[in-house]
Amino acid sequence: MKSISEAYSFEGKQLVCSHQSAVNNCEMIFAVFIPPKIKKPPVLWYLSGLTCSHLNVMEKGEYRKKAAELGMVIICPDTSPRGESVPDEKDNWQFGSGAGFYLDATQSPYDKNYNMYSYIIDELPSVIENYFDFDMSRQSIFGHSMGGHGAIVMALRNPNKFKSCSAFAPIVEPSTAKWSSEAFKKYIGLDQSNWHKYDSVALVKNDYYFPEILVDQGDADSFLEEGLRPWLLQDACKNTNINLKLRMQPNYDHSYYFISTFMADHLIWHRERI
Amino acid sequence: MKSISEAYSFEGKQLVCSHQSAVNNCEMIFAVFIPPKIKKPPVLWYLSGLTCSHLNVMEKGEYRKKAAELGMVIICPDTSPRGESVPDEKDNWQFGSGAGFYLDATQSPYDKNYNMYSYIIDELPSVIENYFDFDMSRQSIFGHSMGGHGAIVMALRNPNKFKSCSAFAPIVEPSTAKWSSEAFKKYIGLDQSNWHKYDSVALVKNDYYFPEILVDQGDADSFLEEGLRPWLLQDACKNTNINLKLRMQPNYDHSYYFISTFMADHLIWHRERI
Repeated sequence: MKSISEAYSFEGKQLVCSHQSAVNNCEMIFAVFIPPKIKKPPVLWYLSGLTCSHLNVMEKGEYRKKAAELGMVIICPDTSPRGESVPDEKDNWQFGSGAGFYLDATQSPYDKNYNMYSYIIDELPSVIENYFDFDMSRQSIFGHSMGGHGAIVMALRNPNKFKSCSAFAPIVEPSTAKWSSEAFKKYIGLDQSNWHKYDSVALVKNDYYFPEILVDQGDADSFLEEGLRPWLLQDACKNTNINLKLRMQPNYDHSYYFISTFMADHLIWHRERI
Repeated sequence: MKSISEAYSFEGKQLVCSHQSAVNNCEMIFAVFIPPKIKKPPVLWYLSGLTCSHLNVMEKGEYRKKAAELGMVIICPDTSPRGESVPDEKDNWQFGSGAGFYLDATQSPYDKNYNMYSYIIDELPSVIENYFDFDMSRQSIFGHSMGGHGAIVMALRNPNKFKSCSAFAPIVEPSTAKWSSEAFKKYIGLDQSNWHKYDSVALVKNDYYFPEILVDQGDADSFLEEGLRPWLLQDACKNTNINLKLRMQPNYDHSYYFISTFMADHLIWHRERI
């Protein structure tokens, strides 16, 4: 692992690191904030949205103050593999670089690099465990938009790995949202029965379970009606034991101006459960 | 005035606006955060550092949460005139675009556009007063690096206009710091007696007065020894009635990871005095 940068902030350390990923076959970058004054802190994963890298939330997310107070590590991975050897569609912001959708591709040529599900669940936690002294028995996960989809899917499929889950404006049914369904076709093929393991609504309908999910959604979000549709997850959870706490937030859009507003709330939510 | 963008954040509004500047002879952009639930809020000006625009602090400064709580407007102007008709040195980050040094140029061709002192003190407040319902009888000022220099100079020269002043890592004696003295030569000529009105140490030595100045300075700041040197201002203030509160902050650098850490402290400082 290589250290790319290190800055002191809120008495903790904001690091950016890179490493050679075996599952994605490229160098991957991630950000990690280490809080002060706590031994073996618990770990909260933040998965970012379409077009983002580790940088967006690191710069605009406003998580360090509360994470330092609460004594939580925040890890912000990139959203896809990148590099000259990684197949991409440079003019398409909904596929390829910045748009890994947190799944493991099965279709050539994407299956060689686009394996963000295994990367987040298996490979990066191992890298983190080798280099840092965090309490990996206490992990939680959250994310924004495409990363909210990723966080909810990963929690539902790994309820014993994550202590808590939340999301800002998640894509809850990517199988049927246009910006994700086109990408799913290319990554995992035309057989839609293979898509369900990456679709939170389908997982809930198939009895996957996570005790509580917190979702904040701005009602002025321009992607709400066509891309996000949190009511689909709300409907799916209705006759289950999943406690979905969906908060519609008046006037907020899809940006980090919205995310940063509710960031502290989410960190407190996770800290109470981790 | 034109509205460029508007986003809801922390129950307030983060706006970006532009207008045609008469003193700078170009279109100028600024950001303004309007806190919720308060009529005629007071105004805190934030002056940014070299290479920055209004964007850097708007994205990374983490001021909205506390400004919303305290009920203060935060105005973030650009750091220089910009545009095709504005003379510039594109490869020099210490002069021209992004490096206006908050002075009024006297030398051709810069005097036509580089008049940031008059812009911040006179023109932009008039524009703000015309378009917003803020309490312009209650204004304070702070800034970072080159903008810390600007804030302290403006407070010392306008002690009745500003209720309070603070700075993150300010350039306190720009007349003798290399990154500013070269720019001063081009903007205001070789006669150094004209430089003193833009130099906080010189102003203090010439009996300019402001009651209190708060300065936070990271001791791991790579510009500390050659460019910033807050001890020069500390020495100058020693036999005056100016209460300079200089806090050396261990391990912090020159970046927004440092600024954001102490942003809330500064907003509280200003709110108690405005």
